Amino acid sequence: MAATAFSDVASIDRREEVLAAAAECFMRRGYEATSMDDVAEALGATKGRVYHHFRSKPELFFEVYRRAMAILVNGAAAAEEGGGSAAERLERVSRIHVLSMMETQTFQRSLTLGADLYRFGNAGVHKAVLEELMDIRRSYEDVFRRLFAEGNADGSLGPLDPSLAMRTVLGALNWVAIWYSPQPGETRAHRERLAEDIATQVLGGYLAG
Amino acid sequence: MAATAFSDVASIDRREEVLAAAAECFMRRGYEATSMDDVAEALGATKGRVYHHFRSKPELFFEVYRRAMAILVNGAAAAEEGGGSAAERLERVSRIHVLSMMETQTFQRSLTLGADLYRFGNAGVHKAVLEELMDIRRSYEDVFRRLFAEGNADGSLGPLDPSLAMRTVLGALNWVAIWYSPQPGETRAHRERLAEDIATQVLGGYLAG
Repeated sequence: MAATAFSDVASIDRREEVLAAAAECFMRRGYEATSMDDVAEALGATKGRVYHHFRSKPELFFEVYRRAMAILVNGAAAAEEGGGSAAERLERVSRIHVLSMMETQTFQRSLTLGADLYRFGNAGVHKAVLEELMDIRRSYEDVFRRLFAEGNADGSLGPLDPSLAMRTVLGALNWVAIWYSPQPGETRAHRERLAEDIATQVLGGYLAG
Repeated sequence: MAATAFSDVASIDRREEVLAAAAECFMRRGYEATSMDDVAEALGATKGRVYHHFRSKPELFFEVYRRAMAILVNGAAAAEEGGGSAAERLERVSRIHVLSMMETQTFQRSLTLGADLYRFGNAGVHKAVLEELMDIRRSYEDVFRRLFAEGNADGSLGPLDPSLAMRTVLGALNWVAIWYSPQPGETRAHRERLAEDIATQVLGGYLAG
């Protein structure tokens, strides 16, 4: 039993390595130009090893995307738990969002690729999966929309359009995944300070006067 | 002479059509997955017509990118001309930036692709051109950085880190090119109102208290 458990863990670890290599490839080259060969090469492994864990490139991409969304959804749920005014919860959710952009950047970059696939991709066999992924994304966006609306109601935020505020704020927060590069010697404390500064600045325009 | 002038104009128009088709292809599929064949197909023309105006895919992409940056640079220069406090100029520059994201969206989406090519692309023959494009981009970002610093100095903006403020605000403004879809029956007045709302919201957190 111990041997089985050990081998399960090792298998999970290898699956994670494949996912991480794929996320990196998708970020560098985009979805269409990335092949299973590229992923194997980035992994320093055979293509067989990639196929052992994922049957196809779309399946691999969908898992990268799902992982990225799960990180954001779980982060937001944890950040909301502390309670407080809508403005306070929004600030914590925004901070953890920025931290995720920095610390799981390669995965997070898949979100824009997925939206483009949904918008421009050939309708067909994957349309249903893409629809499911977009639903996850929309329900995450709904967290921000709801918090903005709650802030209107509890008086912690000034008058605003919750949908436009959600898009504008998520734009600033998502963009971190595009410009961020880890600095040599950087610590988690440095990233937390950066996340706090960005969240404070971008939300400042919405606070009740 | 008249005939020559006419044919020049027609040739410029056809070159513009090639550029527009290319921008659309790059937005939909990314840089690497787009071929000259794709551009010809999007144009409903032969590949020969594409090659008549651009010798290679990189040359075509670079021109799309340069065009996108020229639109932003010229817009910012015009918006600054009216004078006023740094906060007022920043607001006008941000509004015209958002309008450009909406009205020249396919071109503007090349900016992220270009940054990725620069960051991840194979160093080689195009490195020098990419370096030049990144310089144009950085000098545009410098306009925002300078306006934030001026707003600190003239008291129209509160204390801030000009570089971080530039990245955060440009993130919110650039993201418009990612989520925006023209609505049926939409007018320029509608887009101007949207641009004003976004600029006002995203800059609100930086205004002097």
